[in-house]
Amino acid sequence: MSKLSSGKLNKQAEFVTVVLAGGSGTRFWPLSRSAHPKQFLNLAPDGTSLIQATASRIAPLESNSELLVVTAQNQSQLVAQHLPQAKVLAEPMPKNTAACIAYAAAKVLVELGDVPMICLPADHLIAGNEELLRTYKRALELTKTEDLLATIGIPPSYPETGYGYIKKGQNYKDTEHIYSVHSFVEKPNLHLAKEYLSSGDYFWNSGMFIWRAGVIWKAFQELMPKLAPQLEKLLDLAKLDFPLAETSNLFEQFESISIDYGVMEKASNVVMLAGVGFRWSDVGSWSSWKDAYEEIHPDDSRNLIFGDASLINCKDTLIYGDKKFIAGVGLESLIVVDTPDAILVCHRDQAQEVKKIVDLLKEKGKHGLV
Amino acid sequence: MSKLSSGKLNKQAEFVTVVLAGGSGTRFWPLSRSAHPKQFLNLAPDGTSLIQATASRIAPLESNSELLVVTAQNQSQLVAQHLPQAKVLAEPMPKNTAACIAYAAAKVLVELGDVPMICLPADHLIAGNEELLRTYKRALELTKTEDLLATIGIPPSYPETGYGYIKKGQNYKDTEHIYSVHSFVEKPNLHLAKEYLSSGDYFWNSGMFIWRAGVIWKAFQELMPKLAPQLEKLLDLAKLDFPLAETSNLFEQFESISIDYGVMEKASNVVMLAGVGFRWSDVGSWSSWKDAYEEIHPDDSRNLIFGDASLINCKDTLIYGDKKFIAGVGLESLIVVDTPDAILVCHRDQAQEVKKIVDLLKEKGKHGLV
Repeated sequence: MSKLSSGKLNKQAEFVTVVLAGGSGTRFWPLSRSAHPKQFLNLAPDGTSLIQATASRIAPLESNSELLVVTAQNQSQLVAQHLPQAKVLAEPMPKNTAACIAYAAAKVLVELGDVPMICLPADHLIAGNEELLRTYKRALELTKTEDLLATIGIPPSYPETGYGYIKKGQNYKDTEHIYSVHSFVEKPNLHLAKEYLSSGDYFWNSGMFIWRAGVIWKAFQELMPKLAPQLEKLLDLAKLDFPLAETSNLFEQFESISIDYGVMEKASNVVMLAGVGFRWSDVGSWSSWKDAYEEIHPDDSRNLIFGDASLINCKDTLIYGDKKFIAGVGLESLIVVDTPDAILVCHRDQAQEVKKIVDLLKEKGKHGLV
Repeated sequence: MSKLSSGKLNKQAEFVTVVLAGGSGTRFWPLSRSAHPKQFLNLAPDGTSLIQATASRIAPLESNSELLVVTAQNQSQLVAQHLPQAKVLAEPMPKNTAACIAYAAAKVLVELGDVPMICLPADHLIAGNEELLRTYKRALELTKTEDLLATIGIPPSYPETGYGYIKKGQNYKDTEHIYSVHSFVEKPNLHLAKEYLSSGDYFWNSGMFIWRAGVIWKAFQELMPKLAPQLEKLLDLAKLDFPLAETSNLFEQFESISIDYGVMEKASNVVMLAGVGFRWSDVGSWSSWKDAYEEIHPDDSRNLIFGDASLINCKDTLIYGDKKFIAGVGLESLIVVDTPDAILVCHRDQAQEVKKIVDLLKEKGKHGLV
């Protein structure tokens, strides 16, 4: 592929949904592999992949919009398979979310101009679509006319220690559920997370952003001034559909920094919309996926079975089968995942450690399993 | 096969080792299957099958003896594969241990006469072969000259509730480690098992027996008098190498009763040799197999891995792999067994419940997995 952009955006589009699909998560091993990361796994409750579910959720708003997926070069074919309707923008190398968003914004600016962008992670689970769409719509309306960087904060339902938080500031222009931002806060320990929960002032940082292309562009220029010459170059390359060699050269120079660190924490025009009425999870592990799934499909039994399995005396256990029959006896809070070449058996409390298995396999040179 | 006996015993043999291999245990599912029961699984510490290990243990005494395996008809080919040196006696239908031993005794009486028989279950694990052989030898010497029914009792090392016990009586003729038997005792509850352990008077009933063919024959005649006409017929059929149809007819009439109930508990000429200096386990489940294996191969880590696996933060966990890589994370006291078509994940404390999985599979008509 000599061009990294798969095609021009439709000129009629009133806004662009930018799906950030660069992740190469290892915490869903053995189902996720380096060449088949989490966003392509069929982990949505309707059996579709997480990236398909992300696109489906926003589809009702899409009448006059475009879908643009930013992904790793070696995943652009997978994206095309999962979302044939999407335009694909391939990153020549992984460079965190600031570069990724600048990349998409350059394309939007050049092809459509200063229209709104809704930036969405490809690999989250959300239930309660009506309320979600209402939040997206309000954010679109708000940012269409005002020069704001909008983010969506999720009211926490329990003291999660795996998420960053946003501390809300003043109510924005007396508008319900919209706030200025006091500060972005690192992942807390359990004690702090409990304080955050009870205070009512803290929201989970969902990583969903809404702004006009020109507004985020100006923020990059002002808040990351070293980036300025590279940004100019990026606009030039956008006009050429991002030729591989030159775009690669440019990307090499980009700072690898998240949009939160690079822009959101420094900007003065940030607002947070409280994501009220829907359930959100970043499904960062098998364990949180089980929780999120159960919130969506509550069941008296805390066991969750996919595939052919029987459980005896089991509680709170997830079986994710492949072709083999799986029998569980006397299990509690366990995760069992079968794939054609590897099996994971993991206690829920240690689901985050699964990535260590991947590290171990790499060390041992078992690249076929990674 | 029109004859149920695979060939005549060698006339020179001074005794016959009778291996009782009729079991169709389900507690080693998914490795054990109805057509491939426990005794044929490669669960011996040297990687051989339990039945092969049983034969190997007695081999040093075999110079002038014969090996006779009594098994189910559909398993006689498996026996021939595992023990090509053995004579095989196929049971036309399963009829508990009394019938099984009468069957073997008839063959021995007809072909060799009143020589000693050592009757051994095919599916136990024993470590400490020198002491075991010493016990066998003493039993052979004792029963060669005296009309005794000898059994081997194992000094308990912990309060096992899954075994029957033998309460020892008086010291037999002031001979060390040989006792008359006060009584055979059912599987106790934990409280009783602890009392048995501390009293020093109780031994595990190992199911190993030593006697002359004529002595056990006489015991059958006297203690199971209804059997008398069938016993006569059995001797006649032995002379014909047990033709299938007639032997089947005869077996149908046999009472299905264990040798313990039918003979040992009623006989007055029973002695028990204390099995001192070796370790014994009936390996009735994956969990007790793990214990027995560890006694033989003690390891600082309580984890036991067969196949390709990696464990992170795991304790006391058994991985029995097949072709797939298995990763365990945060597991404690767990058993994981992979086979080509089924996976078991089971807490050690509930290893006995594995048979319920087999029942469940039968109910569901999944006979391929049973």
